[in-house]
Formats: sequence, C-alpha cells, structure tokens
Amino acid sequence: MGMSKGEMTRQAIVDRATRVASRVGLGGLTIGSLAADTGLSKSGLFAHFNSKESLQLQVLEHARSRFVDLVVRPALKAPRGEPRVRALFDRWLAWCGDLPGGCVFVAAASELDDQPGPVRDQLAANQRDWLETVTTVFRGGVTEGQFRADADPEQFAHDLYGVILAYHHASRLLRDGKAEERARRALDRLIDAAREPG
Amino acid sequence: MGMSKGEMTRQAIVDRATRVASRVGLGGLTIGSLAADTGLSKSGLFAHFNSKESLQLQVLEHARSRFVDLVVRPALKAPRGEPRVRALFDRWLAWCGDLPGGCVFVAAASELDDQPGPVRDQLAANQRDWLETVTTVFRGGVTEGQFRADADPEQFAHDLYGVILAYHHASRLLRDGKAEERARRALDRLIDAAREPG
Repeated sequence: MGMSKGEMTRQAIVDRATRVASRVGLGGLTIGSLAADTGLSKSGLFAHFNSKESLQLQVLEHARSRFVDLVVRPALKAPRGEPRVRALFDRWLAWCGDLPGGCVFVAAASELDDQPGPVRDQLAANQRDWLETVTTVFRGGVTEGQFRADADPEQFAHDLYGVILAYHHASRLLRDGKAEERARRALDRLIDAAREPG
Repeated sequence: MGMSKGEMTRQAIVDRATRVASRVGLGGLTIGSLAADTGLSKSGLFAHFNSKESLQLQVLEHARSRFVDLVVRPALKAPRGEPRVRALFDRWLAWCGDLPGGCVFVAAASELDDQPGPVRDQLAANQRDWLETVTTVFRGGVTEGQFRADADPEQFAHDLYGVILAYHHASRLLRDGKAEERARRALDRLIDAAREPG
C-alpha cells in the first residue's frame, strides 16, 4: 500500500534479523552475521542500517510493534477486568513461543542490563511501557469491583512479569514439560489473591 | 593448606573470570578476553584451561560452589520451615547483588538456552538441583505443619524462581528502586498462600 520496494526489503530484513536476535541475542546480531544469515552483501545491509546499533534499534522497534499487534491490541478487545488480564497473559505466553529463540525482550534484558547506551535505554523504556499497560489493565479490574480496592496494580504487573520469566526459564533452559501449567497456576494464585478481602 | 601455587593461581583466575562472566555473559568470556582483563598471557591461560568451554565449565563450577557456601549452607542452619525458606530467599537476593553484573546463572540462562552442549547441560543440571533444594526446604515446612498439607512444593520453588527473576529484571534493567521491596512482598504473598486452608 504505497510502500516502496526498498522499504519492503528493509522490513523483510528486520523481520529476519528479529528471528536471529531471539536466538543469539541482540548483541550477537551484527551486520556481518546478518549478511551470512541472509546471503545479502554487507554493503547492501549497510545501506539499510548504517551501523550495528541502528540495526539493533530497528529490531527492537520491529519486535515492539509485533508485540502490540499480537498481544496488546487483541487482548484489549476482551471485557475489562479479569477477562482482559487473562487475555493479556494468554497472548503474552503465546508470544514467548512465537519466535525460535523465545522472547527477544527477555533474551535482550539480561544481555543489555550492563551495557549503557541507546539500545539498552530503548529496551528499558519498552519494558516500562509494557508494565504500565499491565498495571492499567489490572486497575480496570479494581474499578470494575472484581479486584480488591487495596490491591496494588504495580505489584501485580511486577509479579506477572516474574511469572513469565519463570515460564521462559523453565520451558527454555530446563525443558520442563510442566512450565505452562505452572505459569497458569501462578496466574490463578495472583488473581485469587487480588480477589480476597484485605 | 596443601594447595599448590598453580592451583591457587588457577582459582584466582577462575574467580576473576566469574566476575567478568557476570557482566559480559559466559559466551563473552573467552581466553582472549580474559587475557586482556587479567594481563596474563594467552598461552599461560591455555595451560590452565585448554579451551573456552573448559574455562566456562570451571566458571560455572566455581559459581555453584560459591552459591553453596554463601546461600545454601548458611540458610540450612535456620530452623526448619518458614524461617529456613526466608533465610534461603534473603541470601539468594543478596547473592544477586554480590557480583558486579548480577547473578551469573540468570545471565547465562537466557544466553545458553539455545546453545546445546556441555556448558548448557551443566547450567541446567545446577538449576534443577537448586530448584530441588528449594522444594525440599519448603516441604520441611509442610512436615512441620506450618504450610498446608496440599501445598505444592515444586510449584513453590518454580514461583520463587520467578520472584528472583523479576527482582533481577527490575533492579538491573529497569533500575527500579522498589525492586527489593516488591520481591519481599511477593515472597510474603507466596508464604501466605501456603499457609491458608485449602
């Protein structure tokens, strides 16, 4: 739809690069390794990305945009409160299994936490935005009277992140066949605790 | 105490390498980068480690042994049940702040989950052992009648791992000043749930 051939090519390359980054990490993603993976010339890739940092930033932006399309936007169609919290969680879990190397944000987080610079800043900003979205969705359940008035929406978002990180660790490193079942039980427990009287 | 000079040197180098790995990841730890960091010659380091893989395995073993000394052994001196669970958790949290780059196991986990081989196998075996230790310590609280008879000790260990991962993510990537407070609240909630009647 009015997208130039150059722009389509760039998007296809960024999509491929995102898959590579989910496996080798953002740090392992270089113009050289992407050239080897795609069969494109390094000079051609430089024309699109200029630098490794620009490539990494475009991969992060591509992943963020996909995450909004696959997780956030469809989940926001569920009814407010608990159904919307559960829809977010279901789609977030599915997202973790969508790319060959798991969630690109989780892989990047422990890789970049000690590497100051624009890529780390962008990742941290994305993650804060996402925690804020989870917080807001949970707060909708408080407004609806489904969750306790004294529940702490930011704590819920933080805890839910932990449930996803534990799922990622159990399913990917430990190949634990019960990883998803455990994640769902953990969500149920968080929601039960949010429902109980103070 | 009967330790040869060569062995002392090797241990000092492994200790230094473990600090480096906590920052750059196990994958970023090579004999070349360690030579640059320590000022020792590559040939001298090769005499101790033979290969990058052997260096990585020795770093993992060194970290495991330190974890036992700093976390597991002292926590097992606390009274069985809830006090011992809390002692494990306190020392585990402190461990995450002990090295400059955070927990070397957390950093290695998302880095190695897609890289088959002896280093990944060793890391996964260590992590399973640790989850088993947490499971056993929690089960002691069931035996003591402090936790519900129908509580699931393996689920507790899985969930506690998530609390630590969320803490690591919040404190290191997001520089969230409330990370520790949130981790402690999450532990309290897990323990409260374990106490409640079914």
